[in-house]
Amino acid sequence: MEGLILVLNCGSSSIKFALFDAAAEPLPRAPLWNGKVQGIGGPSPDFGETGVAPHAVALDAGHPHAAALALILARVEARLAGRPLAGVAHRVVHGGGRYHAPTRVDAALIADLRALIPLAPLHQPFPLKAMSLLIERDPQVPQVACFDTGFHHDLPEVEKMLPLPRELGRDRGLRRYGFHGLSYDYMSHALPERHGALARGRTIVAHLGSGASLCAMRELKSVATTMGFSALDGLMMGTRTGSIDPGAILYLMEIERLSLEEVGRLLYHRSGLLGVSGISAEPRVVVRHEDDPGERGERARQALALYVRRIVREIGALVAVLGGLDLLVFTAGVGEHNAFIRERVCRDLAFLGITLDDDANAANAAVISSRDSRVIVGVEPTNEEWIAASHAQRLLRNA
Amino acid sequence: MEGLILVLNCGSSSIKFALFDAAAEPLPRAPLWNGKVQGIGGPSPDFGETGVAPHAVALDAGHPHAAALALILARVEARLAGRPLAGVAHRVVHGGGRYHAPTRVDAALIADLRALIPLAPLHQPFPLKAMSLLIERDPQVPQVACFDTGFHHDLPEVEKMLPLPRELGRDRGLRRYGFHGLSYDYMSHALPERHGALARGRTIVAHLGSGASLCAMRELKSVATTMGFSALDGLMMGTRTGSIDPGAILYLMEIERLSLEEVGRLLYHRSGLLGVSGISAEPRVVVRHEDDPGERGERARQALALYVRRIVREIGALVAVLGGLDLLVFTAGVGEHNAFIRERVCRDLAFLGITLDDDANAANAAVISSRDSRVIVGVEPTNEEWIAASHAQRLLRNA
Repeated sequence: MEGLILVLNCGSSSIKFALFDAAAEPLPRAPLWNGKVQGIGGPSPDFGETGVAPHAVALDAGHPHAAALALILARVEARLAGRPLAGVAHRVVHGGGRYHAPTRVDAALIADLRALIPLAPLHQPFPLKAMSLLIERDPQVPQVACFDTGFHHDLPEVEKMLPLPRELGRDRGLRRYGFHGLSYDYMSHALPERHGALARGRTIVAHLGSGASLCAMRELKSVATTMGFSALDGLMMGTRTGSIDPGAILYLMEIERLSLEEVGRLLYHRSGLLGVSGISAEPRVVVRHEDDPGERGERARQALALYVRRIVREIGALVAVLGGLDLLVFTAGVGEHNAFIRERVCRDLAFLGITLDDDANAANAAVISSRDSRVIVGVEPTNEEWIAASHAQRLLRNA
Repeated sequence: MEGLILVLNCGSSSIKFALFDAAAEPLPRAPLWNGKVQGIGGPSPDFGETGVAPHAVALDAGHPHAAALALILARVEARLAGRPLAGVAHRVVHGGGRYHAPTRVDAALIADLRALIPLAPLHQPFPLKAMSLLIERDPQVPQVACFDTGFHHDLPEVEKMLPLPRELGRDRGLRRYGFHGLSYDYMSHALPERHGALARGRTIVAHLGSGASLCAMRELKSVATTMGFSALDGLMMGTRTGSIDPGAILYLMEIERLSLEEVGRLLYHRSGLLGVSGISAEPRVVVRHEDDPGERGERARQALALYVRRIVREIGALVAVLGGLDLLVFTAGVGEHNAFIRERVCRDLAFLGITLDDDANAANAAVISSRDSRVIVGVEPTNEEWIAASHAQRLLRNA
């Protein structure tokens, strides 16, 4: 295959991009070039790319997303150096009940995916906008949609269900889907390379970023996950509650008189580590305040304790689903870089026979469990861009 | 102590009562007499008591709860046979942040407990009404309030927290409390009698009734529980969802346009086993339809699979909190009588070293694990009335 594959991850206020050389076989894990535009729609957007520090850019205030995309495409053009753009791969949060495998983009697909916006209003619209703009610009460049729900497509039936009446639940799209699928999909490639046959056993991957979830795998397939219908379920996150007593939501609306919109904002943006600590959505920042005097230190300690407890409880739940545990892997921003959180989680899981090698953990090593640990514990950097690019490469080659 | 103690468990449509002989030491586990009035406020209330089949009664339609209480008190009068009524013990769902130990009832307590009605609107009002009526009737008869939240008073801080901003959460009563405390309190007496020192280790009690929760105990104290702020959290129940993705609630209101009241009714009364199966809120009824042809059988199987899966996952979570498991005990309606559900749950927990003795399980025996099971599994009938009566006996004797 000739040319390069551009991967786009379009969010509400940022676009991440990465360019891979599709001619190379197998596709190299590292992109030729990558970066992101941040603060789109805000007062001071900036642009960062390989080898260049983020710098301010001006984006047409009327169409900031289109302007950011145009900026990226102009830079891509320069990087292509005469080689063709073989295709564009998009990370799309939701494939609904219908789409799970990576899929060629056309007008019909965009329309179908647009119908899923109510299922993921904060994430779904932006890649669809980018797809349309790219079709307008050059309909000859093939595009591929890769779904974050896709990896969980074969979840056992019982893990897809919500405890609602069928006519209000399953039959109307109200079911558990699961997210962070590109990350888990990448793990299903990377873990056997790293850990051999062990990775085909009972594995839990902890994707701990600003969003966070766990995935229980057997034979490298998803058999349970903590995010379900929305990106709000499961673990406590930077600003999201994760699971919370449904009665508390009713109480906030009925007694505290919060509107539906206010509750949505509260649960998505003002809760979690930020809300409980009152300090930050980042565990590494909150950790630095654990020893502060007075209420500030107390709140920092409580927020971290809850953050860790929610991970420990949910790992316990998934261990029960798997019937034991062979391999525990941390990934994404917090999972890859925060030795303190990993240490706290693993200390609470000592009963599983987990013991850490403290030096390896401090070094974010690929294997951080000690030699006598009954469960292998690993740190594996995720690579959602590569998995999207490699899906696009395969799909376009076969087309 | 002379006389008898009457225990009242006043709900929205029923009053359960039991009369204990407070002169006996220790207080006998079995009441002298007990029963319940059901269907209060409905078209055909009935009255059932020891040795007498339920029969229809007429209750003043304007004040059906007061009329039901008067009926019970008239029967109590007859049963006293001249002996004094030493006191009345009430099961009260919510003690809030302030009340946990059994407490003598007076006007100030009633006022304080009334302020907690928003925290448990479906349960809290009715015992308070009964307390006021009894004071009016005979202020000399002492009354004692026993709180269903009380046993969880010493939960570790991390288990009391919700992932909300402190100013909207903890500071305004939005925290995890835990429920079914009288049942777990009773277990903290009965389990050491039955299982000796083992019960002081890592124990999980599964209170599976129409409401259902789990309690993890160490040294016979609650260290974690699945119900939190409200009686809607945790396990899937007969008609309640238990935990459900908070995003699903937002979706039901925003996209499906359900009102707050409709969502409340849906989550409390139309979901869970009843909603998913479309058949019944009772596991023993749903089980009978597992082999039905077509959709009916499929829905029955799915509902039971989800019911069991939610128990298994939450037991896994509590095992992680406890750092292992020594004793697993089933109690309440389903827990005491449904061998099928116990078998399904324990089969999925085989990785913990649990094996059942099928005959013992079928017989609802006190110990249902096999000899080589690494975890002892028990069935223990709960006795919330006795624990309330014995708290009242102690409190009134010391007064």
